[in-house]
Amino acid sequence: HSRQFEVGVLDWFARLWEIEKDEYWGYITNCGTEGNLHGILVGREVFPDGILYASRESHYSVFKAARMYRMECVKVDTLVSGEIDCSDLRPKLLANKDKPAILNVNIGTTVKGAVDDLDVVIQTLEECGFSHDRFYIHCDGALFGLMMPFVKRAPKVSFKKPIGSVSVSGHKFVGCPMPCGVQITRMEHINVLSSNVEYLASRDATIMGSRNGHAPLFLWYTLNRKGYKGFQKDVQKCLRNAHYLKDRLHEAGISAMLNELSSTVVFERPRDEEFVRRWQLACEGNIAHVVVMPNVTIEKLDFFLNELVEKRSTWYQGNVQPPCIAAEIGKANCVCALHK
Amino acid sequence: HSRQFEVGVLDWFARLWEIEKDEYWGYITNCGTEGNLHGILVGREVFPDGILYASRESHYSVFKAARMYRMECVKVDTLVSGEIDCSDLRPKLLANKDKPAILNVNIGTTVKGAVDDLDVVIQTLEECGFSHDRFYIHCDGALFGLMMPFVKRAPKVSFKKPIGSVSVSGHKFVGCPMPCGVQITRMEHINVLSSNVEYLASRDATIMGSRNGHAPLFLWYTLNRKGYKGFQKDVQKCLRNAHYLKDRLHEAGISAMLNELSSTVVFERPRDEEFVRRWQLACEGNIAHVVVMPNVTIEKLDFFLNELVEKRSTWYQGNVQPPCIAAEIGKANCVCALHK
Repeated sequence: HSRQFEVGVLDWFARLWEIEKDEYWGYITNCGTEGNLHGILVGREVFPDGILYASRESHYSVFKAARMYRMECVKVDTLVSGEIDCSDLRPKLLANKDKPAILNVNIGTTVKGAVDDLDVVIQTLEECGFSHDRFYIHCDGALFGLMMPFVKRAPKVSFKKPIGSVSVSGHKFVGCPMPCGVQITRMEHINVLSSNVEYLASRDATIMGSRNGHAPLFLWYTLNRKGYKGFQKDVQKCLRNAHYLKDRLHEAGISAMLNELSSTVVFERPRDEEFVRRWQLACEGNIAHVVVMPNVTIEKLDFFLNELVEKRSTWYQGNVQPPCIAAEIGKANCVCALHK
Repeated sequence: HSRQFEVGVLDWFARLWEIEKDEYWGYITNCGTEGNLHGILVGREVFPDGILYASRESHYSVFKAARMYRMECVKVDTLVSGEIDCSDLRPKLLANKDKPAILNVNIGTTVKGAVDDLDVVIQTLEECGFSHDRFYIHCDGALFGLMMPFVKRAPKVSFKKPIGSVSVSGHKFVGCPMPCGVQITRMEHINVLSSNVEYLASRDATIMGSRNGHAPLFLWYTLNRKGYKGFQKDVQKCLRNAHYLKDRLHEAGISAMLNELSSTVVFERPRDEEFVRRWQLACEGNIAHVVVMPNVTIEKLDFFLNELVEKRSTWYQGNVQPPCIAAEIGKANCVCALHK
């Protein structure tokens, strides 16, 4: 086994998210989804009749969890940025004041990289009359949970705030070669979940039971090799390159958006499915996105941009116009015929 | 990605379990537990008000699933062998005739390696008036699901019988270096579970969402290198060595049991925790077990036996007697002071 490495990795994240060694419980998961499944299950076991609130732009695993766990789930609207809209959360909380609230807070949404404002979510809960023993917050930090601590001015994810759990993926920003993730919750919550498994001489409080022994080794190695400074450098490079991409897209007359705290550039969906496949672009409706990771260089971005610009000149000729995506990314970011 | 290898592995298992290529749906899971979580979830989605029946000696993930999914769960007694006791299943089914039945059938229990008799379970369901559209059977073949097809006289796991899903582990008998498993179900069932995930341009019907890309490579390689004949040889060797271990334990005056279709030898729990740790023995109550895998040689078994016999001579002196484990393994297998 590789338990001592797993513990080392967990301690690193516990420090990052400001929780004492003897107050947290965690494990290395098989992926970001397992973290969400775990966090939401802990929330449900703490509040068996709690209602799950999650923004529409939450990862699909959040809604899968609600269905699996037979939980009542309320979808909350989002702002154009992709952030949860607390002016929509408020009436929905007030309409269900008799039941505890379980919240999924996105530390970077899947498509737009939007970061829900944890402090405003907590303030909204408090203003709606939910005391700290009537809500549970799970922070889904799949990709950005590991980048945000290194971004100046970013709202802080911390167990000093009334949150219940945080999860991140290990195969995205950290670059682990197999799907994995980190899940941290409060020790006080885990006892409601765990059950004694005698033949293992241990208690099981995970979702999957089995864990990959290699994943902690890769995570531990990367955390120690790069260190805090190395991650900071990587994050800064990603944000710089993402800004470069967004600026160049705008210069080329292509609608694009970049959230301030994110390295995910959202732009108009390319018209040609072959181009989408070749660049492995994830698309949703009229938009596509590029997630600028540490391995993405300026040269690669230029190559991509040049090809996109060239292809567009063949897609949009005569009466064929690029799509308007103001609804998805806001008028200010849209440069369609109407909004430019 | 390694999709073509994953499909190759799934096709191999579909052939083994006798289901046509266009009639099955499956994937490579992260572990045996994910297979059970999936199979039972499919059962629940097919029969939302179904009751889950599982023998007491089922893997703990089965009861975890019932709790996660908020399903009514009925525990069924077992025979001394560890097999499900259908004379206890019958009245429990009859008491709940108004609700569909979801059954977990063990193809090798965790502790005793007992194989539930699938045919008798189906017959019991039919005799209790459950028509084929009123029950769902998930076969948990964690370890032994892959060995049994190569054992003469073993009851057959086959989709020609009215079963819904089968799962096996890939890191046990196949020896994959990371936890993984294979899950196969009927295509007709999967549509109730899957939901469209636009940004992935695919439908998600798994538990974890992310899959390990290396696992299918290891599985594919091992299946193709060993082949049917190679597995048969390995299984025969394991059964032969397991019989050797049980016989030698009996000869040494140590209570022990070996189920006919299994390579899991159950024996009295060693008195010394240091010995248990050193040999990494899984214990439950008064019993421990050794799972004889292909890497376990006669030499290793002899080494283990000699050490056990030597230690026992220091544990059991004067008035201190070895424990009676007739309740766990039957009088015939117990050689305590009373039963020998």
